[in-house]
Amino acid sequence: MRYLITIEYFGKNYCGWQAQANKLSVQEAIEDALFTIYNQPIKLYGSGRTDSGVHALGQTAHFDAPATIPASRLHLALNRVLPADIRVKEAQKVASDFHARYGVIEKTYLYKFYISKIASPTRAHTHCHIIPPIDIEKMQTACKLLIGTYDFKRFSATGSSVKTSVRTVYRAEIVQINDELTFTITANGFLYNMVRIIAGTLIQIGKGYLGTECISALLQGDTYAKRGDTAPPQGLYLLNVRY
Amino acid sequence: MRYLITIEYFGKNYCGWQAQANKLSVQEAIEDALFTIYNQPIKLYGSGRTDSGVHALGQTAHFDAPATIPASRLHLALNRVLPADIRVKEAQKVASDFHARYGVIEKTYLYKFYISKIASPTRAHTHCHIIPPIDIEKMQTACKLLIGTYDFKRFSATGSSVKTSVRTVYRAEIVQINDELTFTITANGFLYNMVRIIAGTLIQIGKGYLGTECISALLQGDTYAKRGDTAPPQGLYLLNVRY
Repeated sequence: MRYLITIEYFGKNYCGWQAQANKLSVQEAIEDALFTIYNQPIKLYGSGRTDSGVHALGQTAHFDAPATIPASRLHLALNRVLPADIRVKEAQKVASDFHARYGVIEKTYLYKFYISKIASPTRAHTHCHIIPPIDIEKMQTACKLLIGTYDFKRFSATGSSVKTSVRTVYRAEIVQINDELTFTITANGFLYNMVRIIAGTLIQIGKGYLGTECISALLQGDTYAKRGDTAPPQGLYLLNVRY
Repeated sequence: MRYLITIEYFGKNYCGWQAQANKLSVQEAIEDALFTIYNQPIKLYGSGRTDSGVHALGQTAHFDAPATIPASRLHLALNRVLPADIRVKEAQKVASDFHARYGVIEKTYLYKFYISKIASPTRAHTHCHIIPPIDIEKMQTACKLLIGTYDFKRFSATGSSVKTSVRTVYRAEIVQINDELTFTITANGFLYNMVRIIAGTLIQIGKGYLGTECISALLQGDTYAKRGDTAPPQGLYLLNVRY
């Protein structure tokens, strides 16, 4: 039987989704839990990787397992053995040809920022820090330029080995509430570090170090156009994955 | 020169505000920073204690020190040497008879909760978890009964040695936004564990284990009236102190 699970995790103590030497990955932690409840090795297929330190509110993954535990109780069984910083929110049966990665229609990431001269210790692990002044309207203008089908290779880390770097961004929005800023972006897929490089570029635009026109130049593949730094992971959440 | 500082801290790694054996307190951490920048031992007087694990967005404290560092730059000097989970938000000169504890007019605490069947790992250190169902209107009704001048001794932990347990609650409010609930309470002072016992009692009322009338009975000192458990510290924030 194939199952699809939806997972929330706090990324601080993990090397990211995917297994790496020397530090525990979220995938391994869940595979350990699957081993405990099914008493056999079970391979978990995620919707995609998340970087070290990045959180998830709705990561998804599939696995094949005996039908010994009803889908409606699977999250309870897993949560009893998972570490407290990983929780399975729900589990459902899916078709035997369903694939958590290849079946993705769109993914949404949420980036949480706060704007303050002084770092905020109570938000250190959940938000990224922006030092004012920052022009949010400029960031919102730049944000709209990202929507559409483009080659996002300038918004990805070098060395990624994907076949194509063309992606479609369906929605991208920046909302300010008091001293906090959220950046939400939905696309049919994301390149390695794409959300973090986009966020870093939007911040440089808001700070006035880059102009909004750099977005269009970068989307046209202009190798001379400057982009922002990769934004830190602790404010980034994989919000949901749609199939 | 006497200075008043406003402090934000993430309480997870501290035994609370006040010094205790074997675990670092926020007060000691700041006194260490004061020693570093003034090169002499300086005693810090807080507005009051916060429990182990409780956070602060606006704790206040005063100290006497040589006028070698301008008040406008004092937060910068302290933040350079403080651990990252403590930040001084501002510093100001005050009169030589000002006292951070005795001069308090009112204090406000903020309690953050989320309502979910499954624990939320991304909010584990910043919010308390409430398992549904919960009747928020009942909690709001109970909340209003707390406003006024009463003997709050049934809402305090036994063994506290204050002269009087009469306090005046000026404001108390519960607000729901999506799956989150905030409880904000302002009073001229709080007894030991008072906010946490009030919050725990409101939750038991929301869950239907206690009726709203228990608030009045407890405020009348009824020793047979049941109260709720002390709510956990990780969702509690000392929001501000007014002089």
